[in-house]
Amino acid sequence: MLTLNQANVTIVGLGLMGGSLALALRPHVSRITAVDPDEKALSQALEEGIVDRATAKLSEGVRETDLLVLATPVGAILQILEQLPELRPDGCLVLDVGSTKETICQAMDRLPSTFQAIGGHPMCGKEVAGLAAADVQLYMDQTFLLCRTALTTPAVETLALEMVRAIGAKPLFLEPAEHDRLVALMSHLPYFVSSLLMEQAAEQAAADGHIVWQVGASGFRDTTRLAGSDPRMFADIVGTNREAILDRLHHYQKDMERLILLLEQAEDEALQQWLEQRQREHRQYRTSQQRSEE
Amino acid sequence: MLTLNQANVTIVGLGLMGGSLALALRPHVSRITAVDPDEKALSQALEEGIVDRATAKLSEGVRETDLLVLATPVGAILQILEQLPELRPDGCLVLDVGSTKETICQAMDRLPSTFQAIGGHPMCGKEVAGLAAADVQLYMDQTFLLCRTALTTPAVETLALEMVRAIGAKPLFLEPAEHDRLVALMSHLPYFVSSLLMEQAAEQAAADGHIVWQVGASGFRDTTRLAGSDPRMFADIVGTNREAILDRLHHYQKDMERLILLLEQAEDEALQQWLEQRQREHRQYRTSQQRSEE
Repeated sequence: MLTLNQANVTIVGLGLMGGSLALALRPHVSRITAVDPDEKALSQALEEGIVDRATAKLSEGVRETDLLVLATPVGAILQILEQLPELRPDGCLVLDVGSTKETICQAMDRLPSTFQAIGGHPMCGKEVAGLAAADVQLYMDQTFLLCRTALTTPAVETLALEMVRAIGAKPLFLEPAEHDRLVALMSHLPYFVSSLLMEQAAEQAAADGHIVWQVGASGFRDTTRLAGSDPRMFADIVGTNREAILDRLHHYQKDMERLILLLEQAEDEALQQWLEQRQREHRQYRTSQQRSEE
Repeated sequence: MLTLNQANVTIVGLGLMGGSLALALRPHVSRITAVDPDEKALSQALEEGIVDRATAKLSEGVRETDLLVLATPVGAILQILEQLPELRPDGCLVLDVGSTKETICQAMDRLPSTFQAIGGHPMCGKEVAGLAAADVQLYMDQTFLLCRTALTTPAVETLALEMVRAIGAKPLFLEPAEHDRLVALMSHLPYFVSSLLMEQAAEQAAADGHIVWQVGASGFRDTTRLAGSDPRMFADIVGTNREAILDRLHHYQKDMERLILLLEQAEDEALQQWLEQRQREHRQYRTSQQRSEE
């Protein structure tokens, strides 16, 4: 069975995720080929020795590769999976790192049986995109979600696990639909919650000549950080996870209605309990994070 | 007129804000006295040389002081302002650092004219409370909002400005009602937005045996950071800024309803524009912050 250090790996998409993966994976594999339409990113990656080969053509990049890692936004991943059977008639191992999993895993299920494929989603990122933001430490100590498909063989699963551990991440297997419901809560809802806050503050800033920005402290800065995320990535996420995101937004609305009632009816004791409960939950969440970092 | 380096200052409330203020102010004033019910915090502050004198009794602490800084939650500030005329019949200079300003400034307006008073609110904090979290750098480069009252004289305004600059903060004058509307948006709304996200995630964690915590990355962590804030402080904030907070929450609800419609009706072009607009606003906000840090 192919081991990681013998593998020729092609990474499609040399942005934040793909670039960071190339940096972290470099010492552990035989060869890395990058595929990206951005010729400047490609020459930079070659010059800096981040990858061994680089091409703007997908057809060239997938040739002679053992493991193909799809690190583009979800829409492009789906397009590439459509083209793959023609570009690589003899098949290869495929892993993606896209933000949603059900649609992608279904597309992997439809590949010819010459392919071996597994869905992946590392739970890390930054609000800045592109190779310039790539970071060898990006995956370190972060959860790397994996979703089995109909084409997940022991060979591709073992190689994916080897890769996840090599870059310092922690693997966690989830069903694709369960994955999408959980990231709707932990990634997509936070993004919309953050962006809605940004929207209201920007409206105020436009009205008061930006005085309001001077009133914002670290709390506002952190709560709105995700509003800076790549809109193209999120458009694809919405396209492939609409129902789960809507469920989370509706749930949020209902919780907010109850909170507003507590304030309107001056139910101060119930409000105090609500506030204390949230602080306890935050402490439990942070404790679980610190434990898993040990 | 009294200058800062001649001033005997009493700080009431030796938590995060008061403790950090004592640390930052120490080299710039003649003497610092701390008042706090927590005897352990007082002896720690004395031992570490953070303050010169310490007492659990407000009546002792306000005696022989030039400038009284009220650094407790809002409810306690209002109580102290009630007691002050009796405790200091000859008056003194008063500054507070409470989270809301209209109620406090109105209470300052009612002090006898032997007092000179100005409202203050440094726009910084942490989600952890207490003297243990105090930080000499807490105020550095942060906005320090100031609100004039009926008892604001040149003497107290000059001394407050001198203090703000000595601790490295940047003063900004606002009307008390305007202050409360702006912090409802920039501090209180983010707190509730963050806590509502915490509520939904904790519900999921209870249902799935905490698997969901492994799915949370830095985006979730930052967006929920404020949920860890001191509930007692926020109960007081709600009590003195209810209408402004409700306005902001209702506004947020309406924006969320519009966003949900875009998702439900699959208005993908309009959604894309919405996403891009939020990213632009975030960039404008961050640019304004970096400019003001120069």
